[in-house]
Amino acid sequence: MKKYRVLIDAIDEKGLVYKISKLFFEYDLNVISNSEYVDNENNKFFMRSVVEGGIDKKKLYDDLIEIMPLKATVKIVDTCKKNIVILATKESHCLGDILIRYEAGELDANILCVIANYDILEPLISKFGIPFHLVSHEGLNRSQHSGLILEKLKEYDHLDYIVLAKYMRILPAEFVETYPNQIINIHHSFLPAFIGANPYKQAYERGVKIIGATAHFVSNNLDEGPIIEQQIKNVNHAHGWTDMRDAGRDVEKVVFSNAIKLALEDKIFIYGNKTIIF
Amino acid sequence: MKKYRVLIDAIDEKGLVYKISKLFFEYDLNVISNSEYVDNENNKFFMRSVVEGGIDKKKLYDDLIEIMPLKATVKIVDTCKKNIVILATKESHCLGDILIRYEAGELDANILCVIANYDILEPLISKFGIPFHLVSHEGLNRSQHSGLILEKLKEYDHLDYIVLAKYMRILPAEFVETYPNQIINIHHSFLPAFIGANPYKQAYERGVKIIGATAHFVSNNLDEGPIIEQQIKNVNHAHGWTDMRDAGRDVEKVVFSNAIKLALEDKIFIYGNKTIIF
Amino acid sequence: MKKYRVLIDAIDEKGLVYKISKLFFEYDLNVISNSEYVDNENNKFFMRSVVEGGIDKKKLYDDLIEIMPLKATVKIVDTCKKNIVILATKESHCLGDILIRYEAGELDANILCVIANYDILEPLISKFGIPFHLVSHEGLNRSQHSGLILEKLKEYDHLDYIVLAKYMRILPAEFVETYPNQIINIHHSFLPAFIGANPYKQAYERGVKIIGATAHFVSNNLDEGPIIEQQIKNVNHAHGWTDMRDAGRDVEKVVFSNAIKLALEDKIFIYGNKTIIF
Amino acid sequence: MKKYRVLIDAIDEKGLVYKISKLFFEYDLNVISNSEYVDNENNKFFMRSVVEGGIDKKKLYDDLIEIMPLKATVKIVDTCKKNIVILATKESHCLGDILIRYEAGELDANILCVIANYDILEPLISKFGIPFHLVSHEGLNRSQHSGLILEKLKEYDHLDYIVLAKYMRILPAEFVETYPNQIINIHHSFLPAFIGANPYKQAYERGVKIIGATAHFVSNNLDEGPIIEQQIKNVNHAHGWTDMRDAGRDVEKVVFSNAIKLALEDKIFIYGNKTIIF
Repeated sequence: MKKYRVLIDAIDEKGLVYKISKLFFEYDLNVISNSEYVDNENNKFFMRSVVEGGIDKKKLYDDLIEIMPLKATVKIVDTCKKNIVILATKESHCLGDILIRYEAGELDANILCVIANYDILEPLISKFGIPFHLVSHEGLNRSQHSGLILEKLKEYDHLDYIVLAKYMRILPAEFVETYPNQIINIHHSFLPAFIGANPYKQAYERGVKIIGATAHFVSNNLDEGPIIEQQIKNVNHAHGWTDMRDAGRDVEKVVFSNAIKLALEDKIFIYGNKTIIF
Repeated sequence: MKKYRVLIDAIDEKGLVYKISKLFFEYDLNVISNSEYVDNENNKFFMRSVVEGGIDKKKLYDDLIEIMPLKATVKIVDTCKKNIVILATKESHCLGDILIRYEAGELDANILCVIANYDILEPLISKFGIPFHLVSHEGLNRSQHSGLILEKLKEYDHLDYIVLAKYMRILPAEFVETYPNQIINIHHSFLPAFIGANPYKQAYERGVKIIGATAHFVSNNLDEGPIIEQQIKNVNHAHGWTDMRDAGRDVEKVVFSNAIKLALEDKIFIYGNKTIIF
Repeated sequence: MKKYRVLIDAIDEKGLVYKISKLFFEYDLNVISNSEYVDNENNKFFMRSVVEGGIDKKKLYDDLIEIMPLKATVKIVDTCKKNIVILATKESHCLGDILIRYEAGELDANILCVIANYDILEPLISKFGIPFHLVSHEGLNRSQHSGLILEKLKEYDHLDYIVLAKYMRILPAEFVETYPNQIINIHHSFLPAFIGANPYKQAYERGVKIIGATAHFVSNNLDEGPIIEQQIKNVNHAHGWTDMRDAGRDVEKVVFSNAIKLALEDKIFIYGNKTIIF
Repeated sequence: MKKYRVLIDAIDEKGLVYKISKLFFEYDLNVISNSEYVDNENNKFFMRSVVEGGIDKKKLYDDLIEIMPLKATVKIVDTCKKNIVILATKESHCLGDILIRYEAGELDANILCVIANYDILEPLISKFGIPFHLVSHEGLNRSQHSGLILEKLKEYDHLDYIVLAKYMRILPAEFVETYPNQIINIHHSFLPAFIGANPYKQAYERGVKIIGATAHFVSNNLDEGPIIEQQIKNVNHAHGWTDMRDAGRDVEKVVFSNAIKLALEDKIFIYGNKTIIF
C-alpha cells in the first residue's frame, strides 16, 4: 500500500478535524501520523497527515475540498524523491554536506545539477557525477546573470526546490518570483541580525558572544524571507572574524541540510512571512 | 465558557481521531489545541485536547469511554491550580526558583507546604508565607523517616504532585508507591550517566566536557524513572567539581521548573518507563 | 596570606609576560591562576592574575607601572565583596534570581538597595531585608527621573556596579557617564537583533526560531554597549509572543546572573566596544 | 620567520612562567599566543605557547629542560601538516565530513590512507584520490584482524594520529599500546552513558530527551579514554531509535572533526584520564 502526505491549510472553523478524519475513515486510510496547528491570532488551520491506503488521489482531493471552507489549500503528495538544483559560489562546506548525504542515500532527492558562478567547485562536484554548469557573472549585471541561470534551469522539468549552498549573490525579483517558496537559502548569521554582506565581519565588529546561521525561504526582501531553522554557537574574544567564519561553517551546514530535509518531507507550511513546521 | 483538558491514551485502532473529534463536534466544543501521538512500536495512541464549552464532564467521559477501545484511559481535567508539596534538604536554587515564580503568579499551583530534613531553608521559605515542616532524619532509618513524612503529607488532601527540589535522600518503595507517577525529582546529571550520590564528583573524575540535569518521575529504581526533561552545559578542564556543581545549578533549576510546568499543564503522558510530552 | 587580582591592559610589546612574572617571582607571590590575551589586530595585551602573598599594594602597583609600556592600566584588587545597586521595574525573574543567590551566600556582593519606578516588587524585596526605594517616573521627563535616581545613589558610597534587572527605561547620557562601565543591563534578545522596546513582539513578528538574551554594559547608544554574555533558546511556530517572553525569562535570568558574577570576579576587560572575558 | 608550538607539562612550582618567559625573551621570540593551566589538585603545570623566531630547536629544548623541574615534558613542534590514517566501517558521515574539509584545504593534515573492514566506502574514498585498504575481519578473531591492520599501518612512516571515523570494532590492547594517545574515536553517546554497542538503541530504551556524541582518545578500557569533546541534541518521544541515529550523525561528525582539529593544532594535553584543552 502506498503512502501519501495530505497537506491542508484553511480558515479555521469548528469541526475541521472531525470532517477530515471522517473522510480518512471512510476511505479506510491508515493514519500513520497526524499533526495539526491552529493559529488563533489569524484564525488559520494547518494539518499534515501521512496516510496509507489505496486511493484515487483526484477523488480524495475533490472530497477534501468539498468539506473544507472556501479558499482552503489541499495537497496530496506522493512520498517520492523531489528534484532539486543547487546554486553555489566558492565555499564547499554546505554543498559537500549535501553531496555526502546524497551519496549515502540519505537525501530524499535527485540533484539535477549544480550551477555556480565560479568553477572552483567543479572538481568536487564532478567526483559525484552530478552535472555542473558554470554561469559566470563576469561582465554581466545582476539581471543578465540571473537570466542566464533561469535559462539553464528551464532545461530541467519538475524542479521542486532550488537550494542556495552559500550562493553569494542576490537573486533579483524576476528570479525569486519564478520560483515562489521554492528557493531555500542559508544565511551565515542569526537573522535578523547581520543582514547582507559579511555577517561574520559584522558580528566580529559588534563583539557578539554567539554566532549563528539561518535557513530561510528567499523572498524579494534580502534575508527577510520565512525562517525555517536557526542555530548558534558560542564564541569569545579570541575569535577573529575568520575564526568565527570557520566555526560558523559547522552550524551553517547542519542548519541548511536540516532545512532541506524538512522541505523534502513536506513538513513546512508557509503563512505570511512565517513557517509552521511539523 | 470553561476550558478542559481531555487526556486519552488507548490501544491504537483505525478511526480513533474521527470518533473523538465527532464527539467533540456533537458536543459543540471549541477545540483550542489538539496533539496526538501514535507509538507504532507499541500500537498505542495518545491525545491531549484543550476544549472549551459547556459540558457535563461525567457524560462526556462516559461517551468517550464508550467509543474507545477496551482499557483506554480518559481524563477530563479542569484547568485549575494543582496542589503541590515540595521536599527539600539544604540547597536553595531549585526551591528558590519555584518560590520566585510562585510569588509572581507564574506557577499554576498552590504550594501546600515545604518539608525538609534540615532547618536551613526555613528562613527562606518563611519569607514567602508557606508552611515549613522540619522532619529530621537524625537517628531514624530510611523507612522510619519517610514514614514521618508520609504522615505529615496525609494532613494535606488533594495532593497532585510532590516535587523534590534537591531532596538528597532516597525515598523507599512504600513512599513511592503511595504516590505513583506523582513525584518529580531533579537529578544533577544527564541520566543515565552518574546515577546516585555526588554526580558532579563522578563527572569531574571522568573528565567530561558537559554537565547536565535530568527531571524525572520517581520510580522504585534509583534515578531510573521516566525522564521528563534534560539539558546540559559545557565545561572544561578548569572546572573543579565544585565549579561544575555551581555551574550546574542554573541547568538544574531551569530543567526542574520546566518539568513542573509541564506536569501542572497535564502535558505529560507516562508509558512504560518513558514520557510522551505534548 | 591574602589573595589579590592583578589586572593589566597595555600596548603589547615583547617581554611583557617575562617582566610581569619576574616581578611576581621577586615578590615571592604564589600565582594561583593566570590568563593572558593579545589582541593582535589592535596590538593590545590583557592579563588577569590571581596571586597570593604578603604585599604592599602601592609598591607592587608602582613597580608594575614602571616596567609596563606607557598608558598601561594596572589594577590590584582585593578579593572582597563588591557593592551593587539593583534597578528594577515590574518583573521579578532576574531580580529574584539574584535575591535567591544573595540569600544563599553565592553572590560575592553587598546589595545596597533596590530602586524601582513602580512599587510592585517592594513586597518581594522587603522579604530579603534589602532597602527599597520607589522613584516613580510619573509626571517626570527622562532627565528629571534619572536625576532623582542619581541623587538617591549618591547616598551610597563605594558603589561598584549598578545592575539593571529588567529596568525598562532608557538611562540618559548624564546618568551613563556618571557610572562609566559600571552599569550592566540584560536585554531580552540576541543583540544586535531586536534593539529597543518589545523584542519578543519583534521576534514573534519576524518568525524567528530562536529567542535569546544579552547581558551588556550600558553605553550611550541604546543596546549597543559591550556584550558580556548571550544565550538562546529554541522556539517554534506554536510560541505566541507571550510564550516567547515566558520561555525567554529562563535565559534572561541565567545570562544576567552569570554576567554579574563575571563582573564581581573582575573577569571582564572592556576594550573599545568589546569585552575580553577570562 | 618560522612558528613553533612549545608544549610543556611539569610539576608546578613557583616561578615557572617567569623562567620560561625569560628564556623566550632571551631567544628574542615573538610570543603569538600563550595558554597556561595549573591543576592545583595534582600540582601540575601545563603550557602551550606559539612562538615565532629563528631558533635552534635542540638548543631551546635543552635550555627549557634545564630550567624545568624533574620529569617535565617539553615538546617543540613545527606548525606543519600531520599525518593521519582513517579507520572506518560502513557509515560515511564522519569520514565524509573529513574528506570535504580535506578537499577544501581546511584540514591541517595529510590523509595517508583509509582502512576499512568493509568495501562499502571504497567508491566514496576513491573519488578523493586517497588510498583505500580493505582489511576484512571475516573469519578472523579480533587479534588476527587488528594484526593485519597493524601490518598495513607499518607501511606508513611518521604516523601522527589514527582517527576512527565510526570504526565499529573494538581495538585490542596490543593495537592501542602501539599508538598510545594517538588514536581518536567518536562514540555516539554522551559518555559515560551508553558505553558499548548500539548506544542509540540504549538511549531509545531509556527514554532520554537528549542524545549526544563524544570524541575521546582510545585507551584499553572500552569508551573510557580521555574525553576531548562532547555535544548533545534534544530529542523527544517521537524519535524512534533510527531517528535518534539520524539526528545524532550531525552531532557526531561535528564533534569528531573538532576533536581532530584540536589534535592537529597540538591543543590537547592528556593527564591521567583527562584532557586539558587550550
